[in-house]
Amino acid sequence: MKLLTFQHDGNVCFGPKVKKEEAVWDVCQIQDELNVLPSFPSTILKGIEMGFDFLEQVRKLVDAANKDENPARFKRSFQEIEWLSPIPRTPKNILCVGKNYNDHAKEMGAASAPEDIVVFTKSPTSIAAHDQEIPVHADVTSNLDYEGELAVVIGKTGRNIPKKMAYDYIFGYTIANDVTARDLQSKHQQYFLGKSLDGSCPMGPYLVTKEEIADPQKLTVVTKVNGEVRQNGSTEDMIFKVEDLIAEISKYVTLEPGDVILTGTPAGVGKGMKPPTFLKAGDTVKVSIEGIGTLSNTFV
Amino acid sequence: MKLLTFQHDGNVCFGPKVKKEEAVWDVCQIQDELNVLPSFPSTILKGIEMGFDFLEQVRKLVDAANKDENPARFKRSFQEIEWLSPIPRTPKNILCVGKNYNDHAKEMGAASAPEDIVVFTKSPTSIAAHDQEIPVHADVTSNLDYEGELAVVIGKTGRNIPKKMAYDYIFGYTIANDVTARDLQSKHQQYFLGKSLDGSCPMGPYLVTKEEIADPQKLTVVTKVNGEVRQNGSTEDMIFKVEDLIAEISKYVTLEPGDVILTGTPAGVGKGMKPPTFLKAGDTVKVSIEGIGTLSNTFV
Repeated sequence: MKLLTFQHDGNVCFGPKVKKEEAVWDVCQIQDELNVLPSFPSTILKGIEMGFDFLEQVRKLVDAANKDENPARFKRSFQEIEWLSPIPRTPKNILCVGKNYNDHAKEMGAASAPEDIVVFTKSPTSIAAHDQEIPVHADVTSNLDYEGELAVVIGKTGRNIPKKMAYDYIFGYTIANDVTARDLQSKHQQYFLGKSLDGSCPMGPYLVTKEEIADPQKLTVVTKVNGEVRQNGSTEDMIFKVEDLIAEISKYVTLEPGDVILTGTPAGVGKGMKPPTFLKAGDTVKVSIEGIGTLSNTFV
Repeated sequence: MKLLTFQHDGNVCFGPKVKKEEAVWDVCQIQDELNVLPSFPSTILKGIEMGFDFLEQVRKLVDAANKDENPARFKRSFQEIEWLSPIPRTPKNILCVGKNYNDHAKEMGAASAPEDIVVFTKSPTSIAAHDQEIPVHADVTSNLDYEGELAVVIGKTGRNIPKKMAYDYIFGYTIANDVTARDLQSKHQQYFLGKSLDGSCPMGPYLVTKEEIADPQKLTVVTKVNGEVRQNGSTEDMIFKVEDLIAEISKYVTLEPGDVILTGTPAGVGKGMKPPTFLKAGDTVKVSIEGIGTLSNTFV
């Protein structure tokens, strides 16, 4: 199931993408009008928190709409919605893994990739949506850079999660652009400030539930800037795999439903180019991951 | 006003300390029984979010209780409550400033204090209460250390806050112990993991509203381990003052009501001792800041 959060006519709702159509099922309206369920969560985050019955409930609502004499009235075409991030506000800061691809570690000037995972965070106030315009923040940075990444969304609370149980704790996957002010990242030593500018964590367009992704370590990640391919990697080159990340992070930190882990970026960021080339107003960055979709944002 | 959050008879509530008594006004019960206000927030965080009317409302409730024929029934003695952190869950990760005292930067092996602020975060799942037992996490660290710190609680949303307006954005102050696994802090390069173990951010006992602290840069910070003074500093030695921290952080990150900024620790941490001396089960750490109180935790 490909879930998305959207705004339509001033109301925020979410729903699954309609198969083979550029539209979303407005499950809030289905529930409101057809009164299918005793209760239904108002956001994807609340749905994840309620557990795996959530997807069953979404399916029931879509079934009810399909049996209605006029199912079309419950569909919102992508032309009439404003996209929101699938989880517009994560329960804690977004968890991010640094230098998790060898080629990227090298282009950033490291002699080798780190032996132990490097984890930093982005403020949840940095979350932005697919299609949303992102400020270049010229007042504080002249080195704004992109990082296309696979993002893992956690499904339930856990600490000390064994590696072989890690997939049990995944709800699904989305795409993130870990937008980074390189100058601030190095100036302030710890990455948090340079990673947390408003709009610097676009995520979406879809949150794809885990059963749709046969193997998250066999996905191509392609980032284009104004149509030019800059990153063309595969998640099979991650140093710490998705299951390692969940096991390692949860050794120290309690993971919670709706937490998002950005799994690191492959080679090809602007800082690694010769000469380094940073984002400027007017640039459009598209991050595509097979099976998930394309996250597109224009910088202003 | 000294606010605290507590649990009593299975209910979580908050209230102001009763003046000159070791007790708290149970404002939830006052409101429930005397029905003083049309509505009242259920947590300190929701109160901060509603703005400065909040304190006026708390005062009205206490006035109503004092006029009652039996005010004592609205007081909970400290012997009958379980302390909770004033804000048990912050809206984003706790914001922390590294090496903000020269003597501490030196004891940590730095040649000099950093020229630009160093900001990292602690997971909100690490928040603990005054009096709460804290695990030493012997399975993942043998280098657990204390850091007594003044914590600033933000009162309203802001970005790009001018230094001279910074105090307008403060709701109040509390005490934090920025418990740190030194081995993990260095092993994983970025500080987040080593700073985010469960229980590693005790805060409290009180959230003191800002009008009670004439000058937050003239407070002594004393940390004792099993009664022995280890840190004895003054906030006047901060490199970046409270107003600098709010101005600098908000240049990059949107601050929100209930955000907490830990302002850094003075010299005297366990890692700086000769030989380095870390926390072990049975140790009790007390952090005292004048005008706020004493935060006490035993490690287990």
